Amino acid sequence: MAGVLIYETPILPEWIDYNGHLRDAYYGLIASSACDALMDRIGIDAAYRARTRCTLYTLEMHVHFLNEVKSSERVAVSLTILGADHKRIHAGFTLRTAPGAAPAATVEMMLLHYRQGEAPGSAPFPPAIAAAIATLAAAAPAAAFGPASRALALRPAAPAA
Amino acid sequence: MAGVLIYETPILPEWIDYNGHLRDAYYGLIASSACDALMDRIGIDAAYRARTRCTLYTLEMHVHFLNEVKSSERVAVSLTILGADHKRIHAGFTLRTAPGAAPAATVEMMLLHYRQGEAPGSAPFPPAIAAAIATLAAAAPAAAFGPASRALALRPAAPAA
Repeated sequence: MAGVLIYETPILPEWIDYNGHLRDAYYGLIASSACDALMDRIGIDAAYRARTRCTLYTLEMHVHFLNEVKSSERVAVSLTILGADHKRIHAGFTLRTAPGAAPAATVEMMLLHYRQGEAPGSAPFPPAIAAAIATLAAAAPAAAFGPASRALALRPAAPAA
Repeated sequence: MAGVLIYETPILPEWIDYNGHLRDAYYGLIASSACDALMDRIGIDAAYRARTRCTLYTLEMHVHFLNEVKSSERVAVSLTILGADHKRIHAGFTLRTAPGAAPAATVEMMLLHYRQGEAPGSAPFPPAIAAAIATLAAAAPAAAFGPASRALALRPAAPAA
């Protein structure tokens, strides 16, 4: 399975919409929780945030909805680091209802290391965190991730029947 | 203000994250509720869904997070139809905490008219719904919407200080 398994959750009843499956926004909430797990994994945990006032801000999020998720299912999220520089992470999350199953969704986030407080602004990752990001990036090939983010636009469709 | 005002909500306490403001995924939930309002507005309401088994599926969602939203604030959502064809709507939502304020987020969704049930698949909009979409599209100029969706990728940043 592509990516590093990083988070797993049951589907809560209040996440189900009138169509009888997981409401679109809750795919994003599951990815957001997986992003919390990513933060813990690389050392941007509660203690670090309290000590440094630095955290990750989400700049953009792009979701491809690929398969319905039902209330009885669980979702596992695997992580692929699609890119990183001295202060940003381009993270890819793949949501699946079973190991080896076709993805239910792919979610990409552009994340910025940001210092809150009196002198707010972006901040470079400390060396230990940069090293942890590099280790995660090496664990899963970016080329295996997809479908990838793109600019949304209507493309010509087949003529209506 | 660009767009057609379509939905408004207070910020619920459980939507606030450890950074003290609206968690990323809940911008998406607010846009998802605004999409419900869009459906009601164009006639894809509960009665239509029950009668025809047709609904809207979200294919992709792209969020630009632009400004923090605090627990004490309300969010109003305006709608811009960025494109439409015989079965799809490319919808743009702008989230603001006050009229005329800088956007807190822009959210784009690609929506597909879909028939559920025994012979599931995409379905063309009935004429009355197509006309309602055209009316909404004419009410707000697409060119005023932004920042627009794009493929996520790390772009070269200034060297670390």
